[in-house]
Amino acid sequence: MDDVAHEAKHDRRGREARRAARAQRSGVSIPYITRNSPLVEFLNEEGLAIIERNAEILLEEIGIEFRDYPSALKRLKDAGCDIKGERVHFPRGLAKKLISTVPSEYIQHARNSERNVHIGGKLTVFAPVYGSPFVHDLDKGRRYGTIEDFQNFVKLAYMSPSMHHSGGTVCEPVDLPVNKRHLEMVYAHMRYSDKAYMGSVTHPDRAQDSVNLSKILFGEEFIQNNTVITSLINANSPMVWDNTMLGAAEVYARNNQACIITPFILSGAMSPVTIAGTLTQVLAEVWAGTSFVQLVRPGAPVIFGTFVSTLSMQSGAPTFGTPEGSLAIFGAAQLARRMKMPFRTGGSLCASKLPDAQAAYESANTLMPTLLAGTNFVLHAAGWMEGGLASSYEKFIMDVDQLGAMHVMAKGIDLSENGQAMEAFREVPPGGHFLGCAHTQANFESAFYRSPVADNNSFEQWDSEGRLDHSQRANKIWKRMLAEYEAPAIDPGTDEALRDYIDRKKASMPDAAY
Amino acid sequence: MDDVAHEAKHDRRGREARRAARAQRSGVSIPYITRNSPLVEFLNEEGLAIIERNAEILLEEIGIEFRDYPSALKRLKDAGCDIKGERVHFPRGLAKKLISTVPSEYIQHARNSERNVHIGGKLTVFAPVYGSPFVHDLDKGRRYGTIEDFQNFVKLAYMSPSMHHSGGTVCEPVDLPVNKRHLEMVYAHMRYSDKAYMGSVTHPDRAQDSVNLSKILFGEEFIQNNTVITSLINANSPMVWDNTMLGAAEVYARNNQACIITPFILSGAMSPVTIAGTLTQVLAEVWAGTSFVQLVRPGAPVIFGTFVSTLSMQSGAPTFGTPEGSLAIFGAAQLARRMKMPFRTGGSLCASKLPDAQAAYESANTLMPTLLAGTNFVLHAAGWMEGGLASSYEKFIMDVDQLGAMHVMAKGIDLSENGQAMEAFREVPPGGHFLGCAHTQANFESAFYRSPVADNNSFEQWDSEGRLDHSQRANKIWKRMLAEYEAPAIDPGTDEALRDYIDRKKASMPDAAY
Repeated sequence: MDDVAHEAKHDRRGREARRAARAQRSGVSIPYITRNSPLVEFLNEEGLAIIERNAEILLEEIGIEFRDYPSALKRLKDAGCDIKGERVHFPRGLAKKLISTVPSEYIQHARNSERNVHIGGKLTVFAPVYGSPFVHDLDKGRRYGTIEDFQNFVKLAYMSPSMHHSGGTVCEPVDLPVNKRHLEMVYAHMRYSDKAYMGSVTHPDRAQDSVNLSKILFGEEFIQNNTVITSLINANSPMVWDNTMLGAAEVYARNNQACIITPFILSGAMSPVTIAGTLTQVLAEVWAGTSFVQLVRPGAPVIFGTFVSTLSMQSGAPTFGTPEGSLAIFGAAQLARRMKMPFRTGGSLCASKLPDAQAAYESANTLMPTLLAGTNFVLHAAGWMEGGLASSYEKFIMDVDQLGAMHVMAKGIDLSENGQAMEAFREVPPGGHFLGCAHTQANFESAFYRSPVADNNSFEQWDSEGRLDHSQRANKIWKRMLAEYEAPAIDPGTDEALRDYIDRKKASMPDAAY
Repeated sequence: MDDVAHEAKHDRRGREARRAARAQRSGVSIPYITRNSPLVEFLNEEGLAIIERNAEILLEEIGIEFRDYPSALKRLKDAGCDIKGERVHFPRGLAKKLISTVPSEYIQHARNSERNVHIGGKLTVFAPVYGSPFVHDLDKGRRYGTIEDFQNFVKLAYMSPSMHHSGGTVCEPVDLPVNKRHLEMVYAHMRYSDKAYMGSVTHPDRAQDSVNLSKILFGEEFIQNNTVITSLINANSPMVWDNTMLGAAEVYARNNQACIITPFILSGAMSPVTIAGTLTQVLAEVWAGTSFVQLVRPGAPVIFGTFVSTLSMQSGAPTFGTPEGSLAIFGAAQLARRMKMPFRTGGSLCASKLPDAQAAYESANTLMPTLLAGTNFVLHAAGWMEGGLASSYEKFIMDVDQLGAMHVMAKGIDLSENGQAMEAFREVPPGGHFLGCAHTQANFESAFYRSPVADNNSFEQWDSEGRLDHSQRANKIWKRMLAEYEAPAIDPGTDEALRDYIDRKKASMPDAAY
C-alpha cells in the first residue's frame, strides 16, 4: 500500500471509529436479537400433551375465577363458558379456540422507528427490571425509589445498546402520589428515551392515560393501526383474575395495544410444588386471561407470560436462579410455542441483597435458560435484585454486560469461509502464533465479545488499580453514563402537549393520594 | 393416625433423618449424573461435516508435530503417516480409523466401589479445579499453594456430595520439591478421599509412580483389567504434541489407564480467532493425540478433551465465561459425540481475582453450557479462580452449590402422577394456598433444590445477621467442613505399603529439585 492510500484508509478508519463512538454515546441499539441458537426443549410431545390435557381438566372441572368484573363474566358466558358465581368453567377446547386469534408475531413501535421491536418467532427483546419499590447502589445503599431514580434507569436503558426496550416501572417512584405517579413514569419513558415502553396497569383510568399520552406522541391515527404500548397483566394466582388487571387489559386490548398475560407464581404456595403441576396452572391461567382479551378484541396482541419463583421450604421466602426455575422457563416456552403465541419470561432474577456472587450465579442461571428456551420478551433483563424488591444501579450495568454476551451466543457459530479460517492454518505453522497472522488482524476488532465490566488483567495490574470487585467497577460505569447522558430530541410542540395533558390531569386530582 | 402409629412413624423419620445426616457427614455422593436433559447442538450435520473435512485437510496438508519423541514418529509412520522431520501428515481418514478403537463408555474405579464413576454417554462426572499454583481465601488472601492446601481441597471434594471425583492437581503444593511432589499428591487422594483420582503427567517416571501406587491400593491384578486412574494430557497447541505429555500418556495407555487428550487453546493466539477454526484445530489435535494412544494400546480409554479460552484483544489476557467459550463447548461436544468418544470440557471457569459477581457470572456461563452440551467429564467443576492461577476455598464451596443445582436441572421435568399434581388442584380452590395441602406436605422435603450458600431471607433478617455476602457465607462453610472432616478408613497394611513406596522413592532422589 502506498502512503497516500494508507493515509486514506487510516482516515477512513478514523472516521468510522469516531462514528461508531458517537453512535455508542447516543445509545444506538441493535433493535433486537434474531436467534440462530437451537431451542432447548425438556418436554417431548407426550409431556406437552399431558400438561395440555391437565390444563383442560383444570379449566373445565375446577374452573377459574374472574372477580369483581361482571362484564368479563358476561363476555365469557356468551362465548360458551359455564359460570357459577364468579367461577368460570371452560368446556374442553374452548379456551384454545378463543386464543387462536392471537397474532404469533407483531411489531411494537418506538417513537424512533429504528428502535421498533419485533415480538415473536426467533426474536428476543430485552427490557429492564419492573416493579421494585426500592433502589440500591453501593454509595447510598438501599432506599425507596424516587422519580429521579426512575429517570436514571430510563437513561441507563436508553444508553445501553444491548437493552432493546425502555420497560415500564423500572422502579417505583415512591416520592410521587400514587394517583399521579403513572403520568410521570410514562412521560419519563417518552422524554428520556426513544425506545419502546410499557403503560400503567394499576387502574383502568391510568391505562387510558397511557393510551392518551401515546396518542399525543404517535398521533391518534397511528395508534389505531399500530401497537405502541406493552402492558404487564398479572394473574392473581392460583386461578384468579381480578378487576384491576382485567380492567387495564381491556383498555389496552380495545386500543390494539399489547398485553403480557402472566401467571405470577411462587411455586409451592401459589401453585403445586412440582414443575409439571405449575406448568399446568400456567397454561390454564394464560388460556383464561388471553381468552378474555381476545373476546374484547380478537387479534389484539398478547404475549404468553410466565413468572415462576420457587419457595424456600425453610423460610417461605421466594428463591431465584434455581434449577426448578430454569425447568419452568424451558417448559413454559414450549407451551407458548404450542399455542403459537409470543413468550415472555425470565430475565436476570436473583434473591441476593447485594450485587455479589449470589446475584450473579442466580441471574446467569435465569438468563441463559431464558435465551435458550426461545423467549421473545424478557422483562427484568437487567437491574433486578433482592427478589424484585430493589432495582440496583450496579447490577443494571453488570446485567447489561451479560445481555451483550447473549447477543453473541445467539448468533451461533459462523461457518463462512472467514469463519472456517483455513487461510490462518496455511499461514501459521505448528508451534506458531496466530496473533500476528493476516486472518487474526482482519478479524480481531470484532472477534470476541468485550465486557466493559469484567477485569481480565493480571493480578499485579488489578492490585495496582485498587483491587476493585465487579460491582465497584460497575459503580464507576453507571455514574459516567449518567454524566454523559444526552436526551434524544423531541418535537417541542409534542413535548408541550404531553406536559399540558399531564398538568391538567394532575390538577383535576386530589393533592396527594398515597 | 393413632398415637402409636404416629410415634412409630416419627421414630422412623427421626432414624432416617439421622442416617441421612450421618451419610452427609461421611461424604456420600451421588456417584455421577445421568442426564435427562436435552443435548444442545449449535451445529447441524453440514456444519459438522465442514469442520471434519477441514480437520482432515489440516492433518494431511499442514500436518502436526510430535516433538522429541522418535518412538512416536515410528509408530505413526508404521501406521501409514507421512513423516517429514517431526512433522506428521495423516492421509485422509487414517486418524479417524485409528481412533475407532476408543471405548465410547468405561468405568473408572474408586477404592470405594460406591464412588466408581461411569464415563461416557448420558453421564456427567464432576471433578475439582486442576493445576493452580496459588490458593486464595478471604482470610489470608492469595498465596502459593502448599501440601496442606492440597489436602484441604481433597477433603472438601470428599465431603461434597455433588463432587463425584477427587481430581488431580487440586492446587500445586509449591512447598514440596518438584521431583517428589507427585508422590504426596497421589497419596493425598488415596488417603484423604475414597473417590476416583487423577495421576501425575509431568514426567513418564511420575506417571509410572502413579501407576505403581495404584497397584498397591487396588492390587496388581485389578488394575491390569480395570481403569483406576485418569490423566490429563494437554497438547502444546497449535498442532504440537511434546515428549513429556506423550511419555506420560504412553505409560497410562500401556497400563489401560485413561487419558484426557486435550487441546489447551487460547483462541486468537494458539488457534484462529474464530470458533469454527478453533474447533477444526481441536478435532485435528485430538485425532492425532488419540491416534498415538491407540497405537500404544488399542482400546485404552481416551476422553476427547477441549479447553478453549478466548483472548482479550486489548490486553492479551485469557478470558473465561465468554459467549465464544460457550460456543466452543457446544461445538466440541458435538465433535466428540461424532467420534463416539467421551467428552471433557468446561467447569466453573472465570478470570476474576475474587469470588465476586464476575467470578459467578463467568462460572455459571461456563457450567450450564458444559452440562447442556452433554459433557461427560468436567474438570475444574469447582474452585477455579483467576484464570486457573488460584484455587479458591470460597469459590469451591460456591461452585459445589451450583453443581448441586445442575443435578436437579439434569433430571428434567417429572411427569409422573405425583409430578402432575392434579390432586393438589382438586384440594386447593382458586385463590387458595398450596403450602398446607397434602400434596405439598408429601413433597416439600425434596421438592426444591436447597442452596446451603445463598441467602433468601428478608432484607431485615439478612441485615440483622451481619449483611454477609455470598463469599463470606462460603468462608464459614469450608471452615466448618474442614473442622468436621473424618478420613475414610483404609487398610493399615495398604497405607503402610503406600508410605513405604513413597519414602523409598523419595530417599532415592536428590534432596530438593525445584
